Amino acid sequence: MTNRAWIFEHPPVGDDFDSALTFRDWPMPVAAEGQVLVRNLYLSLDPANRRWMAGPTYMPQIPTGAPMWGFVMGEVIASNAAGFKPGDIVGGVGTWADYSAVSTDGLDKIPDMGGLPLHTAMGLFRGPGGTAYVGTVDIGQLKAGDTFVVSGAAGSVGSLAGQIAKILGATVIGITGSAEKCAWLTQDLGFDHAIDYRHEDVEARLRALAPQGVNVYFENVGGAVGNAVAANMAKFGRVAVCGLTAQYNEERAPIGLDIMPLLLQGCTMQCFILYDYLDRLPDATAKLAAWHGAGRLKYHPDIRDGLENALDAFKSLFQPGGSHKGKLMVRVDPKAI
Amino acid sequence: MTNRAWIFEHPPVGDDFDSALTFRDWPMPVAAEGQVLVRNLYLSLDPANRRWMAGPTYMPQIPTGAPMWGFVMGEVIASNAAGFKPGDIVGGVGTWADYSAVSTDGLDKIPDMGGLPLHTAMGLFRGPGGTAYVGTVDIGQLKAGDTFVVSGAAGSVGSLAGQIAKILGATVIGITGSAEKCAWLTQDLGFDHAIDYRHEDVEARLRALAPQGVNVYFENVGGAVGNAVAANMAKFGRVAVCGLTAQYNEERAPIGLDIMPLLLQGCTMQCFILYDYLDRLPDATAKLAAWHGAGRLKYHPDIRDGLENALDAFKSLFQPGGSHKGKLMVRVDPKAI
Repeated sequence: MTNRAWIFEHPPVGDDFDSALTFRDWPMPVAAEGQVLVRNLYLSLDPANRRWMAGPTYMPQIPTGAPMWGFVMGEVIASNAAGFKPGDIVGGVGTWADYSAVSTDGLDKIPDMGGLPLHTAMGLFRGPGGTAYVGTVDIGQLKAGDTFVVSGAAGSVGSLAGQIAKILGATVIGITGSAEKCAWLTQDLGFDHAIDYRHEDVEARLRALAPQGVNVYFENVGGAVGNAVAANMAKFGRVAVCGLTAQYNEERAPIGLDIMPLLLQGCTMQCFILYDYLDRLPDATAKLAAWHGAGRLKYHPDIRDGLENALDAFKSLFQPGGSHKGKLMVRVDPKAI
Repeated sequence: MTNRAWIFEHPPVGDDFDSALTFRDWPMPVAAEGQVLVRNLYLSLDPANRRWMAGPTYMPQIPTGAPMWGFVMGEVIASNAAGFKPGDIVGGVGTWADYSAVSTDGLDKIPDMGGLPLHTAMGLFRGPGGTAYVGTVDIGQLKAGDTFVVSGAAGSVGSLAGQIAKILGATVIGITGSAEKCAWLTQDLGFDHAIDYRHEDVEARLRALAPQGVNVYFENVGGAVGNAVAANMAKFGRVAVCGLTAQYNEERAPIGLDIMPLLLQGCTMQCFILYDYLDRLPDATAKLAAWHGAGRLKYHPDIRDGLENALDAFKSLFQPGGSHKGKLMVRVDPKAI
């Protein structure tokens, strides 16, 4: 058994990740009391990981000189904790490595996926689907007939949120960074409209597409796009803030939100993190599974093979107009299904 | 009967109001069908009036070449509308003039004030008190033990909101623009702490005064002060946005809100306008009257005599660190009580 890992050397400056993360052989971790040793099958790559590098969030800042953190799914190969045994398939915050020693606090056992590939537990049902569901249903309080806008619409969360909103009876507008992704949203995923923020005037396009205003905005990016949507909110509109990717790599002061349009329309903006709504996951999972099983919710995994390619894959999350679509994951074990 | 009026010539540039409003003799208005002619007793001066000049809000933009709009209280002297008769005391949106012809839509009859001066109906119970109450209780959802911060704390709404929060059991911190006003807040109104944003580091002071974070922020100003409070919010904190006076006179792009700290704490920001919560006024009025009667809620009217002084008074709303405190009104009729 040998172990390889991406070591977090220092917080990146802007989007220069090359010196921030280095790939090396690394000592095999040992499961301390209350921990399990996990052989990683899949590593999830998420924009939030960038934020974890920059400072404390809902977690402490990632320590330097040790393996980079990320959501993983894997197989328990040694347990030093009650309730977990070798062979269990688990998911939680691990490391960008072949093996992770992780505390069982916050570690979940992955149930049998009933014929679906294992990566659906990471790419559809847990983080992305749970976040999309909670943000649309609980935070956004979407109703049939609403106009729903989502930014980062071709990403893991955005692509699911738009489809959920469509299932719930909304008119759905996605904002993304290329004509190719716009076509994917409308032609493959059933969005009503899509706006290419890099080549179109988002504020003017929304004014034309949603003359009655936007009832629910699912915010994944912030910055100029966020302001363009805020300027088009309907009376009592709701903004569900899930992420602010436009500023994760930004060394300058962020483009702040002009609240005036929200004030004039009596809008509510609610920020949320899935961690605070874990009690909603069973309901979300049941709904997502039913919709997916009925062919109403498309799941688009973007799986890159090989731990050594994790950094290149991660960078693709932050390339405006890049080709990445859907849920980005690294298959750490080549045999994982 | 002669009439004088402040004519709205054009939207002001920045805080240059001198050419935007001119004081002149003006034809006596006539109550058209569905209108009443009101002899104004008091004119309310509010930061929101500045916003009404700049563009459409919850009302159309104020038309140029006609008397400036403002909340008034006055006596009906001629009625061309069912339900109103000469002698009724009414309140609503009128004009900066001796006489206003106003539609009865949105015009309220002022009840007997039970021995309190008439101006309490304008300065304590209706707009300012109602807004302070709704923002603190309904929007802020303040609970005993919370830490409550209000900006524009020496203004009509802020000074009442802080006192209401104190009555409801919160630790109350006010943000205002001079040491003299800070002393007024803590020594006269019972605020726990006050911060002079012009001479102190708001973010650092809040970090020291509220190490557990701010649970409810009553936002009246926006801009840099708003960002300093946002950086100090507690988990699941709530921001009740009532006004953004820091940007009403600003010709440059406003300083936007950095949402990141709110995202990390799962905060909710809710914008509100009293117009949308008029059903809450009876409850608010009953509570305010009881607290005021028991000596627990201080009312500080700032009454300027003479319609001709309305513009100078209005300017004082926008002088950072100026001497204005409490509810600013113009006594149009020298005999009004």
